[in-house]
Amino acid sequence: MKEIKVGIIGFGTVGAGVADCLLKNADVISKRTEVCLKLAKIADLDIVTDRGVVVPKEVLTTSVEELIKEVDIVVELVGGTTIAKKFILDSLNAGKPVITANKALLAEHGEELFAAAEKSSVDIYYEASVAGGIPVIKALREGLSANRIERIYGIMNGTCNYILTRMENEGIGFETILKDAQELGYAEAEPSLDVDGVDTAHKTAILTALAYGEWIGMEPICVEGIRDITLDDIKIADEMGYRIKLLAIMKQVEGNIQARVHPTLIPKSSLLGNVSGVFNAVMITGDVVDDTLYYGKGAGRDATASAVVADIVDVALNLKHNCVHRVPAFRVGKQFNKFNSISEIETEFYIRLSVEDKPGVIAEISEILSLNNISISSFVQKDGDDDTRKKLVILTHSVQEEYLRNAIVKIEKLSIVNDKAQVIRIEQI
Amino acid sequence: MKEIKVGIIGFGTVGAGVADCLLKNADVISKRTEVCLKLAKIADLDIVTDRGVVVPKEVLTTSVEELIKEVDIVVELVGGTTIAKKFILDSLNAGKPVITANKALLAEHGEELFAAAEKSSVDIYYEASVAGGIPVIKALREGLSANRIERIYGIMNGTCNYILTRMENEGIGFETILKDAQELGYAEAEPSLDVDGVDTAHKTAILTALAYGEWIGMEPICVEGIRDITLDDIKIADEMGYRIKLLAIMKQVEGNIQARVHPTLIPKSSLLGNVSGVFNAVMITGDVVDDTLYYGKGAGRDATASAVVADIVDVALNLKHNCVHRVPAFRVGKQFNKFNSISEIETEFYIRLSVEDKPGVIAEISEILSLNNISISSFVQKDGDDDTRKKLVILTHSVQEEYLRNAIVKIEKLSIVNDKAQVIRIEQI
Repeated sequence: MKEIKVGIIGFGTVGAGVADCLLKNADVISKRTEVCLKLAKIADLDIVTDRGVVVPKEVLTTSVEELIKEVDIVVELVGGTTIAKKFILDSLNAGKPVITANKALLAEHGEELFAAAEKSSVDIYYEASVAGGIPVIKALREGLSANRIERIYGIMNGTCNYILTRMENEGIGFETILKDAQELGYAEAEPSLDVDGVDTAHKTAILTALAYGEWIGMEPICVEGIRDITLDDIKIADEMGYRIKLLAIMKQVEGNIQARVHPTLIPKSSLLGNVSGVFNAVMITGDVVDDTLYYGKGAGRDATASAVVADIVDVALNLKHNCVHRVPAFRVGKQFNKFNSISEIETEFYIRLSVEDKPGVIAEISEILSLNNISISSFVQKDGDDDTRKKLVILTHSVQEEYLRNAIVKIEKLSIVNDKAQVIRIEQI
Repeated sequence: MKEIKVGIIGFGTVGAGVADCLLKNADVISKRTEVCLKLAKIADLDIVTDRGVVVPKEVLTTSVEELIKEVDIVVELVGGTTIAKKFILDSLNAGKPVITANKALLAEHGEELFAAAEKSSVDIYYEASVAGGIPVIKALREGLSANRIERIYGIMNGTCNYILTRMENEGIGFETILKDAQELGYAEAEPSLDVDGVDTAHKTAILTALAYGEWIGMEPICVEGIRDITLDDIKIADEMGYRIKLLAIMKQVEGNIQARVHPTLIPKSSLLGNVSGVFNAVMITGDVVDDTLYYGKGAGRDATASAVVADIVDVALNLKHNCVHRVPAFRVGKQFNKFNSISEIETEFYIRLSVEDKPGVIAEISEILSLNNISISSFVQKDGDDDTRKKLVILTHSVQEEYLRNAIVKIEKLSIVNDKAQVIRIEQI
């Protein structure tokens, strides 16, 4: 049986998970693949601390150079976009295939890495970078290879979904739940990568590229996080049949594509609407297959390790069968005309306003909406925070974002309107 | 760009769907794969009828022999287990790789077909045979290759799920809904393959083999259909927090495996419990990745075509890169001790009895249960069909099926018990 030597750079949580998986499931992996994956090297600055995985002493090294030299496949699990990039490029340039879970690095420097892999005729795989343990990259580029991708919806950040689920279930506000999530280890001490939508956008950049054949990077993606979602919004959405999720939306509409990440009202009755807690789900709709959905754990030591080791197996099979680039890291093949900016996109909106409790308020607001060609699909008035105010919630029919924003600017200037308007996009899944 | 000639045997619904997909999405498929898939031949006894797909006249032939000779990949879409088997074996023996969606044939003769493919060093792929357009075979054997498979739950027959969903939503009995489904084309004129669970069992045989490394065939699988599910059962289950689904269950328990197909009470709150209508879903739980779920259309012209064409792409890439058997049709590598028969399995049960409306009834029944070591988890009494009877519904804790059946025989002999007991297994998903 062919032996393939695997080296892991970064003996953190996920590194330990990958080592653990390779050791404990070696028998079943080799039964399935007729390849023997040998955990040959683990490189880390700290090779002393106990990670709960027993590895032979000679496996551990502090030298990444030594690791790259001695192994057949390099697994980069250092994270970040500086030293990790160097390690990956060094590996690729040395002719060693690479597995990485580093979505930030891929989203920002994917093209450069893929070019290096292409030049050295080695593979770089990255299943774990999107939706953790769910084999969604494999589904998208192999399982659905027959399809034009009409749209992809993703709940791809466990921290945000956990916070929103708890806000909904417990009726407790964002800041309190965030603090609790941090204490429980579900959110980072510096939570902005998660709660401001950046992490989801990294994954969106990767999926969009794979779906539409051009590496768009982060720049064109509209990104909004969940910090401004209030309990009021969650409660009113619920009464109107919706749940609020941090949703990644990638779509092809009349030959143009869009990619965006923002809090979104989606129907409670939809499968995605029922994805709660730390779980992730990605719905991919192809022109031939129609809707498909993939669900599982989007993060964590073992779920991530599952995806990393699946990539190791794939690359090992490519080495065994001498078929590098059988499915390349990324193949350019643009399948759209132009990328639509957020202001060009048409969607439905949820608008929550705080207004004076006076006659004529609704008339004034609906006149502005009407003048901007925005038609209202429903309308609720609620008690406000005190006797003199009301909350007004308006759901619109589909309208171009630019018109909606123009109208909101005018509405916010009305003397009867207090505070800024809360505007959340709606998606009828 | 490498051109690969594809031949389709069987120009029925799915055959036309595959031809349509190959023609209309040729550009995107070749952009993604750098392979040009050429629809070279379609063989059918009837090459006159319009299938709604425009193909060049020279593509059509009545000669399967000619097709096999002229193409690089053979797609078998004839169905059935006789002539289809001959076509596949002829193709494999001629050194041509085969794609098939024929679950019945695979479940019954898989090993023979795989041996022929092995002998001729060609691939045989069959993604469309399980759960239609959902790339679940790819997920199981590639995406989750790092995992020991703990269990698989599948809702894999759209006809049954459609009927059960409508029975629940409309409160109309099985026979009436079946008749309507037949008129609407959601059920066959001869529905037994679907409603008696045989089709689901075919798919179960395939998934079990892939998950546990031994081709078990149909024989050991316990199969029960949905004909005996009444509106009463659906309603009572609903009140108790459950939905009834025709569920395929594959599990590894303490080193032994089980595979079974039967109506099952599953929690309404579970994702699988929310899979309704003709949709399919498969939940696969691995020891590393934990729960994952795959959802989509399990049947139909286009969903099936999506999976067939994905297989064509996979085989074409293997031809292009000269890496046949990179992922072989099936690799033996037994991962369990023994296969447990249904009588050995432990599960929870739903028992519905029709009893006389007399004192002491519950005492008599619970004594029998207790003597057979069956403990009750809940208990409901309902009005019966007339004044002299009651319906008694008992949910049990987990118990070995053999003990439960012994108790049921004794309970049915009690003079206070009318009719046969309705017994449905419960799965806490």
